[in-house]
Amino acid sequence: MGTRENELGVTVKKSENFSEWYQQVLLKSNFIDYTDVSGCLAFRPAAYAAWETLSRAVDAEFKKDGIENVYFPLFIPEKFLMKEKEHVEGFAPEVAWVTGAGSSEFDERLAVRPTSETIMYASYSKWVRSWRDLPMRYNQWNNVVRWEFKHPTPFIRTREFLWNEGHTVFATEKEAEAERDVILEIYQRSIRDYLALPGIPGRKSDYEKFAGAVASFSIEHIMPDGLALQGPDFHIDGQNFSKAFDIKFLNEEGKTDYAWQNTYAITTRELGVMVATHGDDKGLILPPMVAHIQIVIVPIYRKENMAEMLEYAKKVQNALKGKYRTRLDSREGYSPGYKFSEWELKGVPLRIEIGAKEAAADKVTLARRDTGEKTEAGMSGLEEKAEELLEKIQENLYQKAEALLKASIHTVKDYQEFKEALEKKKGMMHAAWCGSRECEMKIKEETGAKITNIPFDQGRLLDKCVYCGKKSKHMANFARSY
Amino acid sequence: MGTRENELGVTVKKSENFSEWYQQVLLKSNFIDYTDVSGCLAFRPAAYAAWETLSRAVDAEFKKDGIENVYFPLFIPEKFLMKEKEHVEGFAPEVAWVTGAGSSEFDERLAVRPTSETIMYASYSKWVRSWRDLPMRYNQWNNVVRWEFKHPTPFIRTREFLWNEGHTVFATEKEAEAERDVILEIYQRSIRDYLALPGIPGRKSDYEKFAGAVASFSIEHIMPDGLALQGPDFHIDGQNFSKAFDIKFLNEEGKTDYAWQNTYAITTRELGVMVATHGDDKGLILPPMVAHIQIVIVPIYRKENMAEMLEYAKKVQNALKGKYRTRLDSREGYSPGYKFSEWELKGVPLRIEIGAKEAAADKVTLARRDTGEKTEAGMSGLEEKAEELLEKIQENLYQKAEALLKASIHTVKDYQEFKEALEKKKGMMHAAWCGSRECEMKIKEETGAKITNIPFDQGRLLDKCVYCGKKSKHMANFARSY
Repeated sequence: MGTRENELGVTVKKSENFSEWYQQVLLKSNFIDYTDVSGCLAFRPAAYAAWETLSRAVDAEFKKDGIENVYFPLFIPEKFLMKEKEHVEGFAPEVAWVTGAGSSEFDERLAVRPTSETIMYASYSKWVRSWRDLPMRYNQWNNVVRWEFKHPTPFIRTREFLWNEGHTVFATEKEAEAERDVILEIYQRSIRDYLALPGIPGRKSDYEKFAGAVASFSIEHIMPDGLALQGPDFHIDGQNFSKAFDIKFLNEEGKTDYAWQNTYAITTRELGVMVATHGDDKGLILPPMVAHIQIVIVPIYRKENMAEMLEYAKKVQNALKGKYRTRLDSREGYSPGYKFSEWELKGVPLRIEIGAKEAAADKVTLARRDTGEKTEAGMSGLEEKAEELLEKIQENLYQKAEALLKASIHTVKDYQEFKEALEKKKGMMHAAWCGSRECEMKIKEETGAKITNIPFDQGRLLDKCVYCGKKSKHMANFARSY
Repeated sequence: MGTRENELGVTVKKSENFSEWYQQVLLKSNFIDYTDVSGCLAFRPAAYAAWETLSRAVDAEFKKDGIENVYFPLFIPEKFLMKEKEHVEGFAPEVAWVTGAGSSEFDERLAVRPTSETIMYASYSKWVRSWRDLPMRYNQWNNVVRWEFKHPTPFIRTREFLWNEGHTVFATEKEAEAERDVILEIYQRSIRDYLALPGIPGRKSDYEKFAGAVASFSIEHIMPDGLALQGPDFHIDGQNFSKAFDIKFLNEEGKTDYAWQNTYAITTRELGVMVATHGDDKGLILPPMVAHIQIVIVPIYRKENMAEMLEYAKKVQNALKGKYRTRLDSREGYSPGYKFSEWELKGVPLRIEIGAKEAAADKVTLARRDTGEKTEAGMSGLEEKAEELLEKIQENLYQKAEALLKASIHTVKDYQEFKEALEKKKGMMHAAWCGSRECEMKIKEETGAKITNIPFDQGRLLDKCVYCGKKSKHMANFARSY
């Protein structure tokens, strides 16, 4: 059994080789697998379940707020993609092209959607006629393809990913802009409550904004290796696309006006942040809210009391079944220790151990995946105890992640301090910025750190731009990033 | 308002020109729109909501039965598709090919998945090791592309559609085969309970079975024009794919064996059957269980009592809000009659009319979309009344559809009767068949009718094959079909 256990486990430490650790954890825990299509993953049940739970939670919030789901074609005619200049420049280098079907060649090749503004807005221009049709707040949950040529990293940089794309239309600029806080709050709350993840919301610099947007906003993460990673985003498109796609309407005064639009997304990338943030040297740690299996029950028995122990284990499972996603590990030929390691590797948040001692006393032992802490509970109070522990695990994962995030943001006063902290401490440099593209570019060239965003929570504004020393406008977060 | 109402409504009768009626209903009710990609639809909110509700219901049943969701790449390497001979012959003529990305050409082109057996089974062959790993019952909900060159028809024949694809692996043939009834029953129950649709379950003939399967099963529909249409299906793959993809496992006796597999699917085509079956000359009729808006509230007012009537209408909406999907149509500048027509066109199952008379008596008038019948209800009993009526509508739609289906199946004794009934009555010919491919082919050549399936409900077996007169083996259903 010894060698087998070694093969099973993660062989590197998270703190020593994060990148190797991340891949081992994902593969060995059966969360994902690679496929023969480079950069495209197979989401195994635990991964898909986490995405399904998160996306349905976000979807429920969208629906409460009046957003409606639609579905548009996967393929986009090339001429549509060409309509908005900045947009096409942003996406064309990564577009996968369908050039024919069966044995026929197409006259015009079709883009596999990298995002759906262009095909959706071509329809919107037919559908929107009057202010009475507005707001029109449509969203779709689908798959998109961006053929990145950089080295792919599971969830973080993949060529196909799953996401929501909200594409909304308003009669006035003010209404459109008011949607921003609503959506960013839904995203922030959902990743907190489900994935136990914090993030830093803020505005993108003009240089880093989305291709075709007037202003972009994001929730930014910091990964355990100190690199920043952009999470969910929201883009105010103003009238850029409505002018390119002729989305006009008759306003209440009877005049024709171009509509005001927004777009927003949350993607399967968040699963990568979740795995990277919570996992440890034993493997994955899944937040209870999205765990495919929340509680695993491992009976400990000898041949003589096997039947009796299995029966008791089933009784325990039945007591939890309606409320929790449970798994009873009754496999023969594996030691309890082996089973413990396997379920730890797979990140199941709570383990229930059942031995002769427990059965005799009509109780169980519960072991937390996050802290390793063990507690006993009687059968009568089991459901409440399980609920309490799962809530504590969810909360503890979030608290730890938030503490890590805060510890990774360094307020720096001058460029020297900026560069030193970036080298030694990594993470995000919270620094004063004059707002000029020149300083932003120089810092990026010289240090590799870009502006992740200008956080909504500005803290105290330092007087002088960290680069040029002129009067500052904002505190911005700079980081090297994925 | 007159001309506008004419433009709004469907201008042909369902009984006179079904094909034109079907397209007008879909487009004018804002259920779907065409896009610039031929054969690919935009699902507008009502259409997507119906699919979402149906698919989540099926998904919940799958989960209860232990099926787990996964997600595999959209793209499939050409070499995978080539591995199972019959499979590739069945799909290659319709595969859309991605040949490059950005400005790069791929060395090997990628298929946009027409179905995912090949890419999933390449992974399965790595994942399945022991009988302990089985059964492995995985499913995915996704989009697939089949570039049909025949004339596209919304939902019925589209180049991209949404579906589930279940791809399961078992240790024994018996276990695999036992899955059939479970899945077909989930499909049958779901289309009945949600879409108010009946169907005829049965086995496909060998000639009509799925490319690569050992045996195929289907639920067949009959459309209002008398043509058959295949609904959800289930395929027993035996060891065909496990041999092609090397899905082997160590059985309980310690010997290596090839796994036994099934695949199954329900698609957005069902939405087409739903629209076609229930709709009438006024437009769409949505079954309450999947209606995006279940109840529309239309206040009838003059300028003088507008505020009062709107207030009462809001009170009515609030009384229903938590339980039903409602819409209050408070638009000014449209007559009640215009609004009634519009919501009838859109298929909202229940309309609540509110006038001065109703408000004074603290009651409302409810109008059923399916029968036009009107009832009154007091505010106190409103929720119960709405529930009762919505249930009745759902039930009535199903009963009518079932009666129509039954009336479209004609038991025919000889070939003469077969041909006459097919010409005059259309629908399905329920006839004795000797089981030979020759008779099946001859009938198809001579009449255009193929075997839709051999229904599980065989009824009385007639002695002689309807074509050759030799001893019959089954009663089969023959029909011209989409």
